[in-house]
Amino acid sequence: MPQVSKVQKFITSCLQDLPSINSVDIVKACDRNQELTKPFGSLGRLEDLAIWYSSWQGYQKKSIDSILIAIFAGNHGVAQRGVSAYPAEVTAQMVANFNNGGAAINQLADLLPATLKVVDLELDQPTKDFFEEPAMSEDECSQAFQVGFDLVSHEYDLVIPGEMGIGNSTSASALGYAIYGGSVSDWVGIGTGVSNKTLKHKQEVVEVAVNRHRDTCSTPLDVMQCLGGRELVAIMGSILSARMKKIPVVIDGFICTAPVAVLNAIDSRLIEHVIAGHESAEKGHKIYLNKLGLKPILNMNMRLGEATGAALAAQILRAAVACYGGMATFAEAQVSISS
Amino acid sequence: MPQVSKVQKFITSCLQDLPSINSVDIVKACDRNQELTKPFGSLGRLEDLAIWYSSWQGYQKKSIDSILIAIFAGNHGVAQRGVSAYPAEVTAQMVANFNNGGAAINQLADLLPATLKVVDLELDQPTKDFFEEPAMSEDECSQAFQVGFDLVSHEYDLVIPGEMGIGNSTSASALGYAIYGGSVSDWVGIGTGVSNKTLKHKQEVVEVAVNRHRDTCSTPLDVMQCLGGRELVAIMGSILSARMKKIPVVIDGFICTAPVAVLNAIDSRLIEHVIAGHESAEKGHKIYLNKLGLKPILNMNMRLGEATGAALAAQILRAAVACYGGMATFAEAQVSISS
Repeated sequence: MPQVSKVQKFITSCLQDLPSINSVDIVKACDRNQELTKPFGSLGRLEDLAIWYSSWQGYQKKSIDSILIAIFAGNHGVAQRGVSAYPAEVTAQMVANFNNGGAAINQLADLLPATLKVVDLELDQPTKDFFEEPAMSEDECSQAFQVGFDLVSHEYDLVIPGEMGIGNSTSASALGYAIYGGSVSDWVGIGTGVSNKTLKHKQEVVEVAVNRHRDTCSTPLDVMQCLGGRELVAIMGSILSARMKKIPVVIDGFICTAPVAVLNAIDSRLIEHVIAGHESAEKGHKIYLNKLGLKPILNMNMRLGEATGAALAAQILRAAVACYGGMATFAEAQVSISS
Repeated sequence: MPQVSKVQKFITSCLQDLPSINSVDIVKACDRNQELTKPFGSLGRLEDLAIWYSSWQGYQKKSIDSILIAIFAGNHGVAQRGVSAYPAEVTAQMVANFNNGGAAINQLADLLPATLKVVDLELDQPTKDFFEEPAMSEDECSQAFQVGFDLVSHEYDLVIPGEMGIGNSTSASALGYAIYGGSVSDWVGIGTGVSNKTLKHKQEVVEVAVNRHRDTCSTPLDVMQCLGGRELVAIMGSILSARMKKIPVVIDGFICTAPVAVLNAIDSRLIEHVIAGHESAEKGHKIYLNKLGLKPILNMNMRLGEATGAALAAQILRAAVACYGGMATFAEAQVSISS
């Protein structure tokens, strides 16, 4: 593994130019929140969410209008080890389903509404099987990162990355186990719904693979290159791109949280603009969220991926900003204030 | 108190004509859910919500299109005892705010979108102070019930009742304490945000009032007439009306759950079509939900009322039905099924 990869260099340069939030926005958003026609604090978490959003997009931003949902799809060499309940061709079949409007995320994107972009990352060239060798070369990693970074433009005021990739819950488990350690069984869950026997096998694959690569991985990015996948690297790129543009990001479930953990391991400032949409039913997600200090908005016992949990949660965030932006103040509405 | 009131007679007649859900709808909705392009169960609670919705509106219903949010406003004689952080005139001021589009619920109704109807129930004639006498006469109760019942028409496919009324958390506390017993301090919370001193006073008012009326209240409706308010009775009417029309109802927080408890005490079949939108931060709400066996969709630490928690939750329910209705089946999308 080379000492400093292209992606590492790029992230390092971004860290030197990282825009920061403006404390004036926070103060002014808090002031406005206190003046709105409701008992102070009575909108609970919606108030926190609206102030947090204002800290990134400015206290005068009154609505969330342009949401990007970006689904990155990739295939995984490790899928050939029978770690999923579905065959690898389902990745491409589901990409077709996304493009035809038939998946869950299509319905949720239409409702929000959000722009849904589906990006398939060389589905006919799965990553290498990380049970045996590093999943990606430096170039593969760099190319996928660039795709994710380039997809996020200034026109959006909220970004929701999502994923599709048979085998990628195995990858996300390996990443969590490699970064945080603990017991492998805590990190490996049923994914799309494997049997107990397959679950045991999946645990063994993860444990052996992580131990195999441990000595050659000196940085968080090395870990991603060895154990990750193109869609996970692209998600990293999209999150960094949003960070540079001060666009808040809502993160989906277990698999999408793995690239957040890698970014956090590089520098925690890279994920300050990230909020957790939901807590997934996939068991390792709670550990990821705890390690990252992220408090999910929803818990609907979901484990589908495709950004579905984050898209649902974006409805709540958008509602929070709508209340913050659209409500009258006590003075405007001539409502008597609390005694 | 008369033996059988007009409202009681009406509810009794409704109970004889109560439409039931059709088991065919449930079976067909479950079948469809199993065929959709996602691992079975991976949409978690959304799947349960969609099947539940289908059981009331039919398995072929593919979207929630016409939502009614009905805010009932009433004034309470007990408010003169200083049980709220706000003066009684705020009820009318907030009704004006609703009509001018400045309240939280206006923003949430616009987002859904939902039709928002604001119904003020003789705000210049507060109910009697239930610390001293029954809050309402039989006629007052009957009139308010009728208003709520008549507001719900067949054109809606989801109904969200809401409330506004300074003093009505005291009323909802008294109703819970009268119906379920327990410790009065468990039932009395901060409402709009009272001080510790006022909270103590509010508890005393509720305890004395409930004990004063206990012997003269022989039915759940008697309890409502003695301790409730016009907006709470109107909410009962709206819920019953929706029940007769098989329209699902999403219930808001602590105050809106009181009329649900009264209906349940009359006959539990009257609330089969009710789902809890959220768990409020107002302390007694959790007890109500537990007693009624209702599992809230959201917990956002909200305690505003105005149907805000339910309107947020309706976004989730609508999303669940959209996924159920709009997703392709495995066969339609030609996606390989689980091995």
